[in-house]
Amino acid sequence: MELWFSEMQSKNVKMSYKIKNVLHSEKTKFQNLAVLDSEEFGRMLILDDVVQLTMKDEFIYHEMIAHVPLFTHGSPERVLVIGGGDGGTLHEILKHPVKEAHLVEIDEKVIEASKKFFPELSVAFDDPRAKIFCEDGIAYVKRFKNHYDVIIVDSTDPVGPAVGLFRKEFYKDIFDALTEKGVFVAQTESPFYYEGLLKEVYNCIAEIFPYAAVYTAVVPTYPGALWTFIMGSKQVDPNKANVPESCDFKTRYYTPDIHKACFKIPAFIKEILSK
Amino acid sequence: MELWFSEMQSKNVKMSYKIKNVLHSEKTKFQNLAVLDSEEFGRMLILDDVVQLTMKDEFIYHEMIAHVPLFTHGSPERVLVIGGGDGGTLHEILKHPVKEAHLVEIDEKVIEASKKFFPELSVAFDDPRAKIFCEDGIAYVKRFKNHYDVIIVDSTDPVGPAVGLFRKEFYKDIFDALTEKGVFVAQTESPFYYEGLLKEVYNCIAEIFPYAAVYTAVVPTYPGALWTFIMGSKQVDPNKANVPESCDFKTRYYTPDIHKACFKIPAFIKEILSK
Repeated sequence: MELWFSEMQSKNVKMSYKIKNVLHSEKTKFQNLAVLDSEEFGRMLILDDVVQLTMKDEFIYHEMIAHVPLFTHGSPERVLVIGGGDGGTLHEILKHPVKEAHLVEIDEKVIEASKKFFPELSVAFDDPRAKIFCEDGIAYVKRFKNHYDVIIVDSTDPVGPAVGLFRKEFYKDIFDALTEKGVFVAQTESPFYYEGLLKEVYNCIAEIFPYAAVYTAVVPTYPGALWTFIMGSKQVDPNKANVPESCDFKTRYYTPDIHKACFKIPAFIKEILSK
Repeated sequence: MELWFSEMQSKNVKMSYKIKNVLHSEKTKFQNLAVLDSEEFGRMLILDDVVQLTMKDEFIYHEMIAHVPLFTHGSPERVLVIGGGDGGTLHEILKHPVKEAHLVEIDEKVIEASKKFFPELSVAFDDPRAKIFCEDGIAYVKRFKNHYDVIIVDSTDPVGPAVGLFRKEFYKDIFDALTEKGVFVAQTESPFYYEGLLKEVYNCIAEIFPYAAVYTAVVPTYPGALWTFIMGSKQVDPNKANVPESCDFKTRYYTPDIHKACFKIPAFIKEILSK
């Protein structure tokens, strides 16, 4: 029997993966969760039929959402991840000499699944510097003022449980929760499928933060592949950050040169932002 | 009726596009050729079941394969494209003040199909500086010494009619056909699916040319999306090219900043090259 999983990247484009095994499938309080073992990309986490990570290319997204803001800040001690229950982003953060790395995931079932099926990532949960909170990130962040050096929003697509993570009020609360040199990053999808979102979030961040910048990375299993991140920064100009000349831990995508290069965005994305 | 075209990106990954219309389909002397009108990506050229271009994202590949070598050279007068019968690369080249832009395409049916279905690209064929030769690029290039300033190999995948375009002997002939400041570029697929090819071609070019460099661009409809190009250069160090501060023609992906940034390659590609 041939088993294929298909993700509708849009209503007119479909990406399909040959599957060895369905390792897990459940309906949580928030979403449908599945773990598949694919021939080409290894184990995959699927939420509401959308690929969240694959073991073959997760390093790209996780390194880029973590190392770019942390090195931009320069000396972060307290870091917060909102979402990211698989632990991949946390795992990258903990490669830095931070004092505390907190993660707020609304769906504890994602954390449980990661512990069972993605031990390479969820190993992060056992780090003594890590603390995990299973609650709504929107409510969580409201309780802090001038507290975190870096906040990373590692969300699903802007539908279902993640809708509130793309709203201006939330970004304002994040601004307040950040320390005076604070840096914020959110994933903002591909401009090929979510052009409007990129522009909208960028405008919000540019209104709230002294510095707003877009950077990109290429994630083959995400729709459109050319992935965008928006950074808001209180003091450090993202384009002039004092990036170290080398990393003292191993990376597979991120390099200090990639850090500087990733802020050089294609002409059509510049055009979207300036419309 | 719903019509879908699927490309096997590997034997375990499949990308499918909802199709409005099959505009053309034929078996040429060299390959199966089809032109489809897709809902999401507009018209598509398909050779041997592989997407060659879509009207929605062709600008990325064509701008990056053309403007990077031409601006690296600085003042190219005679440019040759091997392959690229759709005319997209030629169209970008002709935005530069070149004197002659030649194209050698083995399959005249590709040129005919482009004239009929991709007028935005094939308009290049009517430029008085353009000359089209329907013959084998491998034989063609052997006839020239010290003649072209830039040679671009805009080939299909390294199977079928394109196999000879990935061989060392061919690259040596290209070196000889180039003028003393000559620059060469070839597309070398995605490292996610053709890791071996990238390394092999890079080694060849590094043996033949004083300078060899890899650069990348993101093409959503190509397998793996993170696309590589290898440049060989006789005099100009690709990493230190004197790129103009702005373009005097409109681009949608390429910018002078992207030119410099595209040579900053992810850590895992560096590792492939250094193995």
